[in-house]
Amino acid sequence: MNPVLVELSRGERVESWHRGAVAVADAAGRLVWSIGDVERLIYPRSALKMLQALPLVETGAADAYGLSNRELALACASHSGEAFHVETVAAWLHKIGCSESDLACGPPPGLTRAHHNCSGKHTGFLTVARHIGAPTDGYQEPDHPVQRLALGGMAEMAGVDPAALPVAIDGCTAPAAALSLTALATAMGRLADPAGLGEGRAAAARRLDAAVKAEPLYVAGTGRACTALIEAAGGAASVKTGAEGAYVAVISKLGLGVALKIDDGAGRGAETAIAAVLARLGVVDPADATVAALIQPPVTNSVGRVVGQRRPSTDLLAALQALDP
Amino acid sequence: MNPVLVELSRGERVESWHRGAVAVADAAGRLVWSIGDVERLIYPRSALKMLQALPLVETGAADAYGLSNRELALACASHSGEAFHVETVAAWLHKIGCSESDLACGPPPGLTRAHHNCSGKHTGFLTVARHIGAPTDGYQEPDHPVQRLALGGMAEMAGVDPAALPVAIDGCTAPAAALSLTALATAMGRLADPAGLGEGRAAAARRLDAAVKAEPLYVAGTGRACTALIEAAGGAASVKTGAEGAYVAVISKLGLGVALKIDDGAGRGAETAIAAVLARLGVVDPADATVAALIQPPVTNSVGRVVGQRRPSTDLLAALQALDP
Repeated sequence: MNPVLVELSRGERVESWHRGAVAVADAAGRLVWSIGDVERLIYPRSALKMLQALPLVETGAADAYGLSNRELALACASHSGEAFHVETVAAWLHKIGCSESDLACGPPPGLTRAHHNCSGKHTGFLTVARHIGAPTDGYQEPDHPVQRLALGGMAEMAGVDPAALPVAIDGCTAPAAALSLTALATAMGRLADPAGLGEGRAAAARRLDAAVKAEPLYVAGTGRACTALIEAAGGAASVKTGAEGAYVAVISKLGLGVALKIDDGAGRGAETAIAAVLARLGVVDPADATVAALIQPPVTNSVGRVVGQRRPSTDLLAALQALDP
Repeated sequence: MNPVLVELSRGERVESWHRGAVAVADAAGRLVWSIGDVERLIYPRSALKMLQALPLVETGAADAYGLSNRELALACASHSGEAFHVETVAAWLHKIGCSESDLACGPPPGLTRAHHNCSGKHTGFLTVARHIGAPTDGYQEPDHPVQRLALGGMAEMAGVDPAALPVAIDGCTAPAAALSLTALATAMGRLADPAGLGEGRAAAARRLDAAVKAEPLYVAGTGRACTALIEAAGGAASVKTGAEGAYVAVISKLGLGVALKIDDGAGRGAETAIAAVLARLGVVDPADATVAALIQPPVTNSVGRVVGQRRPSTDLLAALQALDP
């Protein structure tokens, strides 16, 4: 039974709450701090994107096609489908001799496939397929060479057996692997401190992390939590949300990885929890207005009056005292 | 610690889950069936609207202004702001000599106050104020005569001390009372079987229940769960959702009331749980497509492939075996 990590008050009472678990690990796979059950397998969903993008750099595809930080950030993104996202994806598709019809992710209602929040990840997959001479058709299937590279790299980074990696299907049609939070935090710790990895893998980790930090608007979008936290961290960390309450952070400043999952899948719970952990680690300043708006935003009513608050639970705050930055 | 009531699967695994509690009670306040902690106080939010509308009928205001089933249903509604909702509210406001500017609920972004999902409830409050000769200004304040009537009636129906009723502020600026699920289910049981109430209260309960059943589109809107469940129940029950995972049902066919709250506030969890309870009670047919779409909807990806399922938990299904219809 996971503890309450985040609660919402109304008046004098707690109205709703979010349970979950958080793991903080280093590149050696050492669990530095945790709360809740961090061994149960969860679906990190889009929180896997920085791992899924490793082959894009590691195979040489990114260099072969001259990809910029914006394109690499989009490969790691769940973007908002703003014009600059869609236009960058479209130009990238053109550069690799593909078009929107090659994307396996379906279009959001009334929009094009390039508007799908995962279109950058998918264009990254297509770029790898082009570069290694694999067919573009079926690139999203788990047994396609592109996905074998992505899943194999992910398993290595997480320190798990790739043959035993459970894989379901994500909203965008790509494989959705399941990992424990400990394994996921370890993978993020290795992105944060890649010195112990092979040379090509380490270079890929550093380049993706740098791209995400350089182009936070391309990782999410205007007003989004990931964009705000990457900007607030000022180069100390990359972060990435995943559907159904997942969140990861790659803290290069400390050589640590963070992974969390809210049991009920609520993004609002995940945003408050990751912001509280990053604040405790000194990666973001809780006095920063955009950070405070994630850690303890007011609940307002339809005329703007404050009627409650979202905030880290006392259990989370107490447990965080043992997380020594 | 409340049990898991609803879970979401992806592939072979459960990805997210929703904990909560449910109470089923009769008009005598007897707890017929329950799961989870049904004594803790929760905010039913808009699930209180049928109770808050009692004074509208009971004071004679509804008759004095010749209100139709549509207007009474809107008084009990969290409507979607469709044209027919907004136009009916506007005409009703005109009929009582008020205008949109008298509504205390704020406008949704870019829209008018009549579009607010609670505009029918607020117009009902204004109608009571007009009828009893109270000022319309400040009608949403807990100490205004209109709210004293509403809170007093609610406390009587729930069998609690009105002086001890905790009250916070709702999203629409009206009072948000806190009740236990047992008390809330009792109040709904009394709406379902009002024979033991005073004559005026009983008539008001029957008239509101009939209005909700007659005009389910005015209680919620196109494609909404409340509308679908009232239609599927075919006169056997009224239902009403509340923000943050609350739901109630008034089952006139059985003389029972149902009240539930999902701990984390998820509407998707509340919809599946209430539909499962109503199906077990024989009030709705789980083979009905609109009911099945609430009890166990598929989780589909962006190309329409089924990748998982939302469903009642095995704990809820097992516990429901003891709920004898």
